[in-house]
Amino acid sequence: MEQQNSYELLNKIDSPSDLRKLPVTALPEVCAELRNKIIDELSRNPGHFGSNLGVIELTVALHYIYHTPYDRIVWDVGHQAYGHKILTGRRDQFCTNRKLNGLRPFPSPEESEYDTFTCGHASNSISAALGMAVAAAKKGEEDRHVVAVIGDGSMSGGLAFEGLNNASSTPNNLLIILNDNNMAIDRSVGGMKQCLLNMHTSQGYNRMRNAIARKCYQWGILNDERRKSLIRFNNSLKSMLMQQQNIFEGMNIRYFGPIDGHDVLQLTKVLKEIKDMKGPKLLHIHTVKGKGYKKAEEAATVWHAPGTFDKETGKRFIADTQGLPPLFQDVFGETLLELAKQNDRIVGVTPAMPTGCSMNILMKEMPDRAFDVGIAEGHAVTFSGGMAKDGLLPFCNIYSSFMQRAYDNVIHDVAIQKLNVVLCLDRAGLVGEDGPTHHGVFDLAYMRPIPNLTIASPYDEHELRRLMYTAQLPDQGPFVIRYPRGRGVLPDWKCPLEAVEVGKGRKLKDGKDIALISIGPIGNTAARAISRVEKETGCSIAHYDLRFLKPLDEEMLHEIGKNFSRIVTIEDGVLKGGMGSAILEFMSDNGYSPQVKRIGIPDRFIQHGPVKDLHAICGMDEAGIYQVLTQIVTI
Amino acid sequence: MEQQNSYELLNKIDSPSDLRKLPVTALPEVCAELRNKIIDELSRNPGHFGSNLGVIELTVALHYIYHTPYDRIVWDVGHQAYGHKILTGRRDQFCTNRKLNGLRPFPSPEESEYDTFTCGHASNSISAALGMAVAAAKKGEEDRHVVAVIGDGSMSGGLAFEGLNNASSTPNNLLIILNDNNMAIDRSVGGMKQCLLNMHTSQGYNRMRNAIARKCYQWGILNDERRKSLIRFNNSLKSMLMQQQNIFEGMNIRYFGPIDGHDVLQLTKVLKEIKDMKGPKLLHIHTVKGKGYKKAEEAATVWHAPGTFDKETGKRFIADTQGLPPLFQDVFGETLLELAKQNDRIVGVTPAMPTGCSMNILMKEMPDRAFDVGIAEGHAVTFSGGMAKDGLLPFCNIYSSFMQRAYDNVIHDVAIQKLNVVLCLDRAGLVGEDGPTHHGVFDLAYMRPIPNLTIASPYDEHELRRLMYTAQLPDQGPFVIRYPRGRGVLPDWKCPLEAVEVGKGRKLKDGKDIALISIGPIGNTAARAISRVEKETGCSIAHYDLRFLKPLDEEMLHEIGKNFSRIVTIEDGVLKGGMGSAILEFMSDNGYSPQVKRIGIPDRFIQHGPVKDLHAICGMDEAGIYQVLTQIVTI
Repeated sequence: MEQQNSYELLNKIDSPSDLRKLPVTALPEVCAELRNKIIDELSRNPGHFGSNLGVIELTVALHYIYHTPYDRIVWDVGHQAYGHKILTGRRDQFCTNRKLNGLRPFPSPEESEYDTFTCGHASNSISAALGMAVAAAKKGEEDRHVVAVIGDGSMSGGLAFEGLNNASSTPNNLLIILNDNNMAIDRSVGGMKQCLLNMHTSQGYNRMRNAIARKCYQWGILNDERRKSLIRFNNSLKSMLMQQQNIFEGMNIRYFGPIDGHDVLQLTKVLKEIKDMKGPKLLHIHTVKGKGYKKAEEAATVWHAPGTFDKETGKRFIADTQGLPPLFQDVFGETLLELAKQNDRIVGVTPAMPTGCSMNILMKEMPDRAFDVGIAEGHAVTFSGGMAKDGLLPFCNIYSSFMQRAYDNVIHDVAIQKLNVVLCLDRAGLVGEDGPTHHGVFDLAYMRPIPNLTIASPYDEHELRRLMYTAQLPDQGPFVIRYPRGRGVLPDWKCPLEAVEVGKGRKLKDGKDIALISIGPIGNTAARAISRVEKETGCSIAHYDLRFLKPLDEEMLHEIGKNFSRIVTIEDGVLKGGMGSAILEFMSDNGYSPQVKRIGIPDRFIQHGPVKDLHAICGMDEAGIYQVLTQIVTI
Repeated sequence: MEQQNSYELLNKIDSPSDLRKLPVTALPEVCAELRNKIIDELSRNPGHFGSNLGVIELTVALHYIYHTPYDRIVWDVGHQAYGHKILTGRRDQFCTNRKLNGLRPFPSPEESEYDTFTCGHASNSISAALGMAVAAAKKGEEDRHVVAVIGDGSMSGGLAFEGLNNASSTPNNLLIILNDNNMAIDRSVGGMKQCLLNMHTSQGYNRMRNAIARKCYQWGILNDERRKSLIRFNNSLKSMLMQQQNIFEGMNIRYFGPIDGHDVLQLTKVLKEIKDMKGPKLLHIHTVKGKGYKKAEEAATVWHAPGTFDKETGKRFIADTQGLPPLFQDVFGETLLELAKQNDRIVGVTPAMPTGCSMNILMKEMPDRAFDVGIAEGHAVTFSGGMAKDGLLPFCNIYSSFMQRAYDNVIHDVAIQKLNVVLCLDRAGLVGEDGPTHHGVFDLAYMRPIPNLTIASPYDEHELRRLMYTAQLPDQGPFVIRYPRGRGVLPDWKCPLEAVEVGKGRKLKDGKDIALISIGPIGNTAARAISRVEKETGCSIAHYDLRFLKPLDEEMLHEIGKNFSRIVTIEDGVLKGGMGSAILEFMSDNGYSPQVKRIGIPDRFIQHGPVKDLHAICGMDEAGIYQVLTQIVTI
């Protein structure tokens, strides 16, 4: 693990054209420097580690062979693009990566012309790249090459398949690079993975199959006439006899590989060879997540995003969390296991996030009760619907922003049938450094219009446990529980499991001048602001935890409507159509006309940065709420 | 085309158990009667024709071999389930099919225990069926069989692929029946189609490939040792040598077929043979859409849903539309062609609905400017995003309820980057006989929270043309235009193409007592109600066409806020979070406190039936609006 920190070559590469001036023999050294640079920077400024080390050689080879930015490289997911950033003019800013106002976490066209398309959610690269390839042809820029780089984990997403399906029938010269490391964040799952594994292990048999074909000719089993009719149905004899079941060739996409994705010289050679071939093609490369950093190679999931670490020893700097409140994720995971032990109808479903959402706790103890379905949010929900229809009780956990992928499945496959699926929206609200693609801020607004749903958000860890317990009671129908990333507020979180009444909020505190209505853990911030305002101004503010966005607690809201002329609402979600909007609808429909000030996320995409900074930007931190309340009090 | 109308066998089948009492030799006659019954009924009571005739034999064979309802048949899409309905106790009610309060248009678990899951949106059957298969295993009901029936058109949907991918790795005994008729509603497209076609045409070569394998053994090219190592990587030699590229076998799903889907005896034989085989498997059957009715076989798209017809002659009863206003669909299609001729950046994108949305007009005249991407809404949007990113201007037309499938693509792949994609939401609002799965009622509510979007809805055909023209002007960013199914109000629809100011509404009529704000063509109904109320009560009602849900016309809304204490809003969409809610937000944020009555769709799934009846049920017809206005006037 000795790291050399001289970047002789790298420091001269201000753009890919500098890279392309180097002799090909220099590329291994460029790769070594780039790898060291990323290890060095990430040891201090945390980020996505393993994925980026896995594509060093690919990144160098792509920018060496293709004339970026004229040629388009479309990265899938985007947490593999650090090398790309460093080579494309952002070397010296790389220390600001993921920081507030610093480099963005994922490629972003607003940041660089080398970043061709929004990255963040998996599986979109083929569709976007196909669009670019078609645009190039239509605009007479046929010499433009377009390359999509997609990981094997992302290949399980239906969108990738839809892209492939269309790429195979629309005229284009797209190159798809399948970066196969057998991993999403956790280990890849599903038939596609097995299929890729088969391809990888089959290489040794190509020679033998070649021999078979030659002999068949020689011995007249395949004569010329037969051969011709064969060719009518296949592009080549090769695809008929000399390959295993290859789903890409099955879809008329030429398949190359698999080759070693860490041999930069072989990569450049192969890319050069296939660069100008017509028609859609796929190059399958095999890489190792965390390549070149032993600890990361050995424990890919941990080193996906390890935080800061000592680069010499590989020791991760893990903050002492003793006495801190738990992560909501762990409360979810532990509680799910507890419930699953009590209720044998319960199963868990996760689209490739068992570690992230802590469903691995259930998975470890009751492996047959939890399903990792791969990156496939739509399927996760519909599959849950199918299980619920026949008597199981799925807890389907999907990050809020990824649930946008399953919107129709929630409406069509769950809500219409009132199926008893518990949809747990992890990472709800502003998520921090992962930025606009990952903020889970739309969920309250897009779930609220769907009939038959119960929608709740816990104020704290105890409430999360109670809501989960309530959701699995008989005949609850579809039940949405949203909660944020990170720690709650109660170190002593393990309260007894007991039910709450569906559609009932809680009055947390009496008051007479203003009613503040909050939903979710942001209510804790509001509570602090209320204390301060009351202390400083002597006014009296009632605080209500709405708890259920749907059904609304009409009794509580009538009480508020009757007794208050000033209402403040706060939610960690968008203002347009969200909880505050639901309160306005209720008040209007019931003939109340209080003055309502809504606090929440304004109508723009919020950048990346620490959650507390982002909350401040949106006026949702203690100071922001304090300011709103004092203004209202003094009117 | 002689039809015999005696249903000797059919009339004795009150449930599938009656069917199963018949000797297998009687099945061809059952099929003949069932086919006649459907032709006869549909000639009088319109519905989905071709798809249903195509699966007569399959339906009979499935209910004959499987013990429904204990065994589960999951239909994909559902417009192929008429035979299923007739065999499962709904024969005598079938004359009420699709009518208000009659049989539902698609299988619905609320209607019958034989209907296992919501059908309507394509591609969900494999995921749902896999859920049921897993549930059966978990609950110790291992003898339960689960069958998903999916068409080749639906196989292009990413959800189907996600289901397959998961089915191949989760233990289950699922049978997937791939009903391959080379059609969605229009002809199927994409690599999957080609792949299936290859499989179909390859059958004749199986024998030869068998021979090759035998010879190879005989001659020692494949000795036992080699054979063993081959088997390590393939389940069988068959999948290595004797098949073409088969994407199902590539994913470890056993593949059978293709077989003739109109030979009911062969179907029952094969189903019986594979019924108790362990593991996931797929049976590929080949059928003809419209089978048994010559006109329908010859023109599958027209006969997908032909309306009523003379069953003897095949003459369709087409109402005289001379002098009627045009379909919004045709205005879209004609206008798109006009615009495409003027602006060579414009391209059209449709997910398998070229005829339905009238993009076939562009397709016919400029085939290289329009893309049918198959049933793949997510891809359609992201692909459009890619094209827009590199300078084209896609008009991507998706039915409103299907756009739910592409929600994340709109947010992540279009809105974040402010890409100039025009998203045309056809079939917005209540759609009528297709019922709750197809009503396009959520779009205003789910689109409104997304930053950077422009969202508009035309009052009439002229406005649709103006909005389309405006959307393609430079630098408009993402632009949503929603409009309903069916006819507009202006027989003379072809106005000059001219721009409207983005974010500007229109005052249609002055007034002083009430302000009515409408969006979309429902405004015409409101206008009629206003006339009547004014005439009868002597009051004066101002009418505003909001036109843009986003950005809001703040100037106009300030005018309304300042001058009116009573506002009525009306939209053909859900009340929760919709346009009325946007008005409440504006009024509240700007310190106005008018009384607001919102008219729109309440918080439940609305059944099927004629649009006018459904509007009446929701209080959105002229009488309903009249009632609201008179109540307010008389307060």
